[in-house]
Amino acid sequence: MLKDWTASERPTPEQMDESLEQLRAKLTDRHVALGEKKLPVLIIFEGWGAAGKGSVLGKIIKNIDPRFFKVATMSVKTQEEERKPFLYRYFVKIPAAGKYMFLDGSYMDEVTTEFLHGDIDEEGFRKRMISIRQFERQLTDNGYLVLKFFFHIGKKEQKRRYEKLLEDKNTRWRVSENDLWQNEHYDKCLNVYDAYLRETNQSQAPWYIIDADNVKWAQQQILEIMVNGIDTALSNGALAVPILQNLFPLRKTVKLSEISLDGKSISDEEYDQELSKLQKKLSKLHNELYRKKIPVIIAYEGWDAAGKGGNIKRIVGALDPRGYEVHPIASPLPNEKARHYLWRFWNRLPKTGHIAIFDRTWYGRVMVERIEGFCSENDWQRAYNEINEFERDLTDWGAVVVKFFVHIDKDVQLERFNERMNTPAKRWKITEEDWRNREKWDIYEQAIDEMLAKTNTINAPWYVLESNDKKYARIKALKIIIKEIEKKI
Amino acid sequence: MLKDWTASERPTPEQMDESLEQLRAKLTDRHVALGEKKLPVLIIFEGWGAAGKGSVLGKIIKNIDPRFFKVATMSVKTQEEERKPFLYRYFVKIPAAGKYMFLDGSYMDEVTTEFLHGDIDEEGFRKRMISIRQFERQLTDNGYLVLKFFFHIGKKEQKRRYEKLLEDKNTRWRVSENDLWQNEHYDKCLNVYDAYLRETNQSQAPWYIIDADNVKWAQQQILEIMVNGIDTALSNGALAVPILQNLFPLRKTVKLSEISLDGKSISDEEYDQELSKLQKKLSKLHNELYRKKIPVIIAYEGWDAAGKGGNIKRIVGALDPRGYEVHPIASPLPNEKARHYLWRFWNRLPKTGHIAIFDRTWYGRVMVERIEGFCSENDWQRAYNEINEFERDLTDWGAVVVKFFVHIDKDVQLERFNERMNTPAKRWKITEEDWRNREKWDIYEQAIDEMLAKTNTINAPWYVLESNDKKYARIKALKIIIKEIEKKI
Repeated sequence: MLKDWTASERPTPEQMDESLEQLRAKLTDRHVALGEKKLPVLIIFEGWGAAGKGSVLGKIIKNIDPRFFKVATMSVKTQEEERKPFLYRYFVKIPAAGKYMFLDGSYMDEVTTEFLHGDIDEEGFRKRMISIRQFERQLTDNGYLVLKFFFHIGKKEQKRRYEKLLEDKNTRWRVSENDLWQNEHYDKCLNVYDAYLRETNQSQAPWYIIDADNVKWAQQQILEIMVNGIDTALSNGALAVPILQNLFPLRKTVKLSEISLDGKSISDEEYDQELSKLQKKLSKLHNELYRKKIPVIIAYEGWDAAGKGGNIKRIVGALDPRGYEVHPIASPLPNEKARHYLWRFWNRLPKTGHIAIFDRTWYGRVMVERIEGFCSENDWQRAYNEINEFERDLTDWGAVVVKFFVHIDKDVQLERFNERMNTPAKRWKITEEDWRNREKWDIYEQAIDEMLAKTNTINAPWYVLESNDKKYARIKALKIIIKEIEKKI
Repeated sequence: MLKDWTASERPTPEQMDESLEQLRAKLTDRHVALGEKKLPVLIIFEGWGAAGKGSVLGKIIKNIDPRFFKVATMSVKTQEEERKPFLYRYFVKIPAAGKYMFLDGSYMDEVTTEFLHGDIDEEGFRKRMISIRQFERQLTDNGYLVLKFFFHIGKKEQKRRYEKLLEDKNTRWRVSENDLWQNEHYDKCLNVYDAYLRETNQSQAPWYIIDADNVKWAQQQILEIMVNGIDTALSNGALAVPILQNLFPLRKTVKLSEISLDGKSISDEEYDQELSKLQKKLSKLHNELYRKKIPVIIAYEGWDAAGKGGNIKRIVGALDPRGYEVHPIASPLPNEKARHYLWRFWNRLPKTGHIAIFDRTWYGRVMVERIEGFCSENDWQRAYNEINEFERDLTDWGAVVVKFFVHIDKDVQLERFNERMNTPAKRWKITEEDWRNREKWDIYEQAIDEMLAKTNTINAPWYVLESNDKKYARIKALKIIIKEIEKKI
């Protein structure tokens, strides 16, 4: 793309001043419409060193009320970020509905730099391209506007700018070793940037190359594309998008109704023995995980009163409290609801070597949100693939991902509900909502069967825990976690 | 994609029968909604030889009323098609609003076969990928639903099927040399197909890989995706899509107001001499074009009464009538209006070695359609890039593309209008509409300036013909045509 590109003709300074004034006025009140239509806007600034990204960005944001935008400079990774998946630091920064987020530098910079310096190879580069395309598609499919600018200047112009910065001792610090390396290897960089732009130039999130020889002109180009892009997105509102085919290898799944719950029990004596033995084993593995920096994600879904809480208690009973976190997942908070539904889970990912346990998960999208109509049919239909992509990002990062569905039958649920009602100490655990959900057992069962079938991937498999006997389920969970961790160690 | 893919689990025969029945019922009445929403649906069947594309297609269409679909088998090119641009035979077959078109084999088959047999190289393959992505994006951007299916079977299964066909003398003819070649070179083919699927897998027109081991199951997969895709498209209606940046090298353009019309004249004597000389030259070139199979496309736009007709007359005066065609372009007919706006121009492309002259053109999109509101703002804004892509396809094919804007000033137009009014023999040439357009001179001028600036590409340049003196304009046109043809010979 960069290679095919030629700068369009620049207007005269007077024309520029006139257009700039008009464009600024247009942008100034767009935040009202963004708010009304709940449109989140992610704007990415990329380009050559010394191309003027920073100064143009500074001028653009002057036209927006500070309550409606944030700027993130994505230069060096924090230690915390180093221990998270590649996309983590970008995903957690996505804007809320009605707001702008400007990224000064992004994953393009990260990936192309790594590739140019040999830190990742062709295959690594290719994998990143897939993740990035998925990320941007997930955003636009979920109603985000994504605008991507590449600031372009020639080799000579770049050199001239560096020399000018180096001359003055007040600006010298702005030129890094890497900047000079880029200018020396301009053509090599151009090839890699060109490949990157081509690979990530998607219709719904296209690249715009900015002629950055002149700051005012760069500003005008960006304002024009922003106003245009925002108006296009505003005029569309919520869209249905094609449901992509699953391309993830799946494991065979059986329906809940085909799973026998009878006979899946364990004696108290055996339980105590096994529990103690398995917890010791898991405890050892936890140390090993920590040393080898392997992250573990354990996801729990299941019927109300199936025994998730007690099950989780037996897992964490084996763990060093400094190395794990349990995340109970309730309805999303307003700031969570205003973003992509996976955002709050990206935010809760463990560091490498740590364990995160989710008590209810991102699968809410295809269960409660589906059934209660909290999202559109297109949203939850699309979510199976989005979730498989999310989990693939996790396992590509090196994580162990284990997913449990804690299963009981309808009679056992009723018994447990009644027991909770009749036991004052447990009455807080039962709500009106639990009774209402119980009435929807059959439609939940159908949704769960579909979920298990469509997301039972080889890399992040589902396990059904038969939990009419809670103790049986606990032992089974421990065994599976141990087995899955051992596979990766 | 093919390599990552694993077949999803097949339902039992009873489950299939039940789903098939439901899906068929759903599809049966979808054409009513397609008609109401004017949705055109292009469905592409690709896949391995003997994978059962034909028989499944036969079963699918049984569920649709024959008035609402067409099937085209895209196997061998006709001689006519051999002499048209690569995409021609596909573009002319796109469905009308509210209708289905099924392509049994498509450009995928064409391109991958050419590449596998060394008829095109890596660069040729890459160029085709760009054209194909543009084509599909142009369709979906203009409101088409595009569904693409790849029928997948393994090497052994394919061999088994070929052997079975060969055993029976009634079916033997169905196995071609190329089919057997494909089976022998299955892995090589797989690599190329995989690359193709990856390169053309766009969010708005994704690939669906069909597990084709079983005909009924293949049917079910396709029906499900069709119903789903149609419902998604129906729920959206007309969308605004992002305006892509121009990536075509442009020539410098001046505004109409900066073009001097004074002094651009020629004496009658000089005119006669030049005309005769240039027409002879063009006539010779026409023969050469014919022998060298170079196609020529000459596009005329201009003000009413600017003298387009007389200008064209002087061009064709030099040409062998068997080797050219003039296409006067009026408002689109209903069957043209029901399709992509470029369709009627694709349909009128010359054969190699022939000349096509367009009296008004595809630029109507960004002039009259823009100004009269016959299309949305998003439509005409997007059209500059679509038109540049269209013309690039033409010049990549080897065509000479020359575009004229025949320019006069407002006073000269008034004189000519009055002359037409006062001359009984010419009165038919002037209509109420001409007077109405004249009132919109200024907004037309603005649209024309924008058009000239945004589509004055290096490969298909614009020339303004100063036509206050019609004779001057005729001589200039002839000279330019000759110069542009000589460049390619």
